[in-house]
Amino acid sequence: MPQSETRNRRFVLAERPKGEPDDNTLRLETGDVPTPGAGQMLLRNEYLSLDPYMRGRMSDAPSYAPPVELGEVMVGGTVAEVVRSDVKGFEAGDWVVAFGGWQDYALSDGKGVINLGKNPENPSWALGVLGMPGLTAWAGLTQIGAPKAGETLVVAAASGPVGATVGQIGKILGCRVVGIAGGPEKCAHVVDTLGFDACIDYKAAGFPEALKDAVPDGIDIYFENVGGAVFDAVLPLLNTRARVPVCGLISQYNATSLPEGPDRLNLLLGAILRKRMTFRGFIVFDDFGHLYPEFAREMSAWVKDGRVRYREDVISGLEQAPSAFVGLLRGEAFGKRVVRLSD
Amino acid sequence: MPQSETRNRRFVLAERPKGEPDDNTLRLETGDVPTPGAGQMLLRNEYLSLDPYMRGRMSDAPSYAPPVELGEVMVGGTVAEVVRSDVKGFEAGDWVVAFGGWQDYALSDGKGVINLGKNPENPSWALGVLGMPGLTAWAGLTQIGAPKAGETLVVAAASGPVGATVGQIGKILGCRVVGIAGGPEKCAHVVDTLGFDACIDYKAAGFPEALKDAVPDGIDIYFENVGGAVFDAVLPLLNTRARVPVCGLISQYNATSLPEGPDRLNLLLGAILRKRMTFRGFIVFDDFGHLYPEFAREMSAWVKDGRVRYREDVISGLEQAPSAFVGLLRGEAFGKRVVRLSD
Repeated sequence: MPQSETRNRRFVLAERPKGEPDDNTLRLETGDVPTPGAGQMLLRNEYLSLDPYMRGRMSDAPSYAPPVELGEVMVGGTVAEVVRSDVKGFEAGDWVVAFGGWQDYALSDGKGVINLGKNPENPSWALGVLGMPGLTAWAGLTQIGAPKAGETLVVAAASGPVGATVGQIGKILGCRVVGIAGGPEKCAHVVDTLGFDACIDYKAAGFPEALKDAVPDGIDIYFENVGGAVFDAVLPLLNTRARVPVCGLISQYNATSLPEGPDRLNLLLGAILRKRMTFRGFIVFDDFGHLYPEFAREMSAWVKDGRVRYREDVISGLEQAPSAFVGLLRGEAFGKRVVRLSD
Repeated sequence: MPQSETRNRRFVLAERPKGEPDDNTLRLETGDVPTPGAGQMLLRNEYLSLDPYMRGRMSDAPSYAPPVELGEVMVGGTVAEVVRSDVKGFEAGDWVVAFGGWQDYALSDGKGVINLGKNPENPSWALGVLGMPGLTAWAGLTQIGAPKAGETLVVAAASGPVGATVGQIGKILGCRVVGIAGGPEKCAHVVDTLGFDACIDYKAAGFPEALKDAVPDGIDIYFENVGGAVFDAVLPLLNTRARVPVCGLISQYNATSLPEGPDRLNLLLGAILRKRMTFRGFIVFDDFGHLYPEFAREMSAWVKDGRVRYREDVISGLEQAPSAFVGLLRGEAFGKRVVRLSD
């Protein structure tokens, strides 16, 4: 079912998922293309970004952002084309980055929307290495990880848009960089294309031992995107004064109960104490949004020079978005997962 | 058994304790007073400091400092008088702060020893508010807690030398300060004498609810000295961007196994992520020793002005040190526990 010029397809939140989202979580509705009022513009979404944080918005558990209400369009970052505009600074034919949501068309008053101009090169990259995931990687690593040349940086979810970028910046800054990814194909990409020093397959037998062997000097910075068994393997390898930017915990997002004991909460506090470590959680735009201009300048140059490489995993068609999102949470994406909405 | 001029009593580590130290942990030995060689001085210990970190030194589990070897004198900070000296800058009759250990006499080459002069006022305070515990409080709060006026600071072990000082500094800096202590007598002292805004008795029924009622705006800074059930009550009350200096975990030091499940390790990581919190462990001299001059200047003035008050819990006689130390770990000390060695 392709994009139409008169009808708007949209996924609304039908039911809050328990555990993994399923066919009842989102509902596809079709309505008229909305009409922009004074001071508004109409956007046709070209690309929808799929990101792990969306799982949190489906839930009404306390979090840093309010949940999507039942019956509302599912939120999401989009790259869109302006169809018509009554907003200063935007005109028909401009490409923009916006929060257009899981739908074909969106209205906007221009707030928080970035204009990419008429003919952007790789417009969808603004949802990845040059956008939120890129800023997440850059800010989390430089502002919390505080890497020094010669230190060992370990990056979880190393083939994903955040992890891949963290590791490549780590290499630029002179770190020894070890990735963790799922499967030999992703690991080969992480080493051969992204230039990490090593990549360990967390799905392979003997993962904790392989990780230990890959970090003979221990771990000075661990960029946490995963939690669960990956963190369990990392924890004993963390060095005195290690820094752990806590960016995500994708292994836990579908969890419906706490794992069985023993209870290791005080064990973690004890490790933080004895090793004098810093663990810091962050939400990129709230904590580091003010650094966006510096990020954009530095990252654009690195991408242009080929020092930072970027891989996309493009899914075709809005109707594929729900299953593609479940696959993302399962670790099935290989690169930054975006949904191409137009033909 | 009083101090002798010819014999040296010393407690050596006889056996590594499993759980709480007992009568077999330390052994009292008596030998000759040691003779200082060239470049050394002989110190007669007047006060021995008892501190929770000593439990860690009795154990050979991996930690930030090497353990005391079996048969060696138990380590400890002391205030001592110089008996005779071949060290430049020290002469007989000087009072000093040193690491003289659990014994009557110690030799020193002067490294790390601070000279208090011939007639110091309250010399033992150099083991508390004006020494390591004071620096711990001041540096942990200012460097990690980063308090701002109007924020809510919660302090565990609030009647102890570190907690009492943290809270009083917090008041000076304009925070709302809530202490946690064991029993009504300690809580009354924390509020009436130390000037905290409130103090909650963690031994009383309904402790978590009482703590919640005492922090209507949540907790911006939690100075962690305790862990266990106290931390469990604090965790849900921590605000977005809360800072948690992890200074000690006294409730856990005698633990011989992990508590039963469920396993809340990922729950803690998730809270750090969602609330964008910072948890940072520190060891005072390693991390903040360079700030000692600034601390000493500021704290001396506050103590002199009466803005920071200090309570000691003085135990008489070296032979009481082992049981006094066990009591310290049980929370029985009321104020800074020191052992008076001379008559």
